[in-house]
Amino acid sequence: MSSTNRFEVIGVPGLPLIEAGDDLVDLILTQFRALGNSFQSGDTICLAQKIVSKSEGRRVLLADVIPSEEARTLATETDKDPRLVELILSESSELLRKKPGVLIMRHRLGLVGAHAGVDQSNIGHEDGECALLLPVDPDASARKFRDEVATRLGVQVGVIITDSANRPWRLGTIGVAIGAAGITVLDDHRGGNDMYGRELKVTLINRADAIASAATLVMGETTEQMPVAVIRGLPLVVGDAEEQTAAMINRPLDEDLFR
Amino acid sequence: MSSTNRFEVIGVPGLPLIEAGDDLVDLILTQFRALGNSFQSGDTICLAQKIVSKSEGRRVLLADVIPSEEARTLATETDKDPRLVELILSESSELLRKKPGVLIMRHRLGLVGAHAGVDQSNIGHEDGECALLLPVDPDASARKFRDEVATRLGVQVGVIITDSANRPWRLGTIGVAIGAAGITVLDDHRGGNDMYGRELKVTLINRADAIASAATLVMGETTEQMPVAVIRGLPLVVGDAEEQTAAMINRPLDEDLFR
Repeated sequence: MSSTNRFEVIGVPGLPLIEAGDDLVDLILTQFRALGNSFQSGDTICLAQKIVSKSEGRRVLLADVIPSEEARTLATETDKDPRLVELILSESSELLRKKPGVLIMRHRLGLVGAHAGVDQSNIGHEDGECALLLPVDPDASARKFRDEVATRLGVQVGVIITDSANRPWRLGTIGVAIGAAGITVLDDHRGGNDMYGRELKVTLINRADAIASAATLVMGETTEQMPVAVIRGLPLVVGDAEEQTAAMINRPLDEDLFR
Repeated sequence: MSSTNRFEVIGVPGLPLIEAGDDLVDLILTQFRALGNSFQSGDTICLAQKIVSKSEGRRVLLADVIPSEEARTLATETDKDPRLVELILSESSELLRKKPGVLIMRHRLGLVGAHAGVDQSNIGHEDGECALLLPVDPDASARKFRDEVATRLGVQVGVIITDSANRPWRLGTIGVAIGAAGITVLDDHRGGNDMYGRELKVTLINRADAIASAATLVMGETTEQMPVAVIRGLPLVVGDAEEQTAAMINRPLDEDLFR
């Protein structure tokens, strides 16, 4: 059995604004304890990409960015700031689509979406206009958080680094997992039988993205300052699957029908 | 404030197999009560598409399907049963991509995905090989369920009809909302400010798909027979938004960059 009958999603409000070098485990745990709770073995801790990127110093001053010729041309075509386009290109492996205001990119991590995760909302601009990049290696960031919780508390948790993603045919963002550690990311039922004994052909379930989406239902998108959610009651690892990374989610390029 | 601090996802196990004409409200409520629970005002009831389709008699005997010339040609190209291809074409408005074993279609409801929702798993085939189609109008099905709960119990619930969907660049299915009633489907923060007072440009949150994904984490995909999940603790309607339908999720055709 790979399912559970019930689980809970618990937001962690009241965290301070995160800055480069901050100890996320310590800050989150301190606040969660102040709320009368703590991490438990089996919890999956969901961290908004934004606080992970900030703590890892991925904030870039636009004044420090020198746009290439390619970036300037693309910026004119899409009516965007050439310095932002330079950052987007430097974070990406492929441009998939463009139109005024929009660049659909394949990020070097394999993620396909608007603007390669380069974002200007909910970051400070006191010292000049800024942008925030995705973590260099979100799976490693998740693993590090997981290992530090194990070392400091002696409890085994799963960790997901969540981001908001658009999709080509559906309006509105959903949560996706861009980093993961300690959990089954893809739950593979292929080759199993359905409840009438008929072979299941295509049932590979993306648990990590579903958990990220559940987390975003309590995470704030604007001023709510709730960049952390704890999932309690879901198994970390299901069936005979293993712990996996979010990098495994990327569909191989040779199976991409929409390049 | 449009967020909540915590919510719970409760699976409803032990339902009987659903057949055409079954009273879903009665069957689910009876079973949920047998488990010591009941629907409460503010709950969002998530129903797997499969049980809604079955109760609405959307099961088709393949022996009754006569493939058109177009269906036979496409079946040969993609190595599929011509009768299934006929059903897929009859449910669709547009073929987006094809390769052996795969047809990516735009369903007449606007949903883009493999095989227009025509599925052969977890349905009975005692009287010959069968396929199950999506409900004719899933938003209306959700509305009907919601209204019947209000009439019979006097409680106001939200309803989502969930399906599993693939995405072009990410492996593994997630839950999506193909029908909805009584909830805010798209939570619009566009035009608001971020926590530093900067205007938010693109934050439209798809709550319905996120709730559907949360629900699928307890819903079974194979033999678990858990086609219903109750979300408790999330507001039905957020901010100054209204009740919406799942049809609103479809990105307008003229904004589709990946046709």
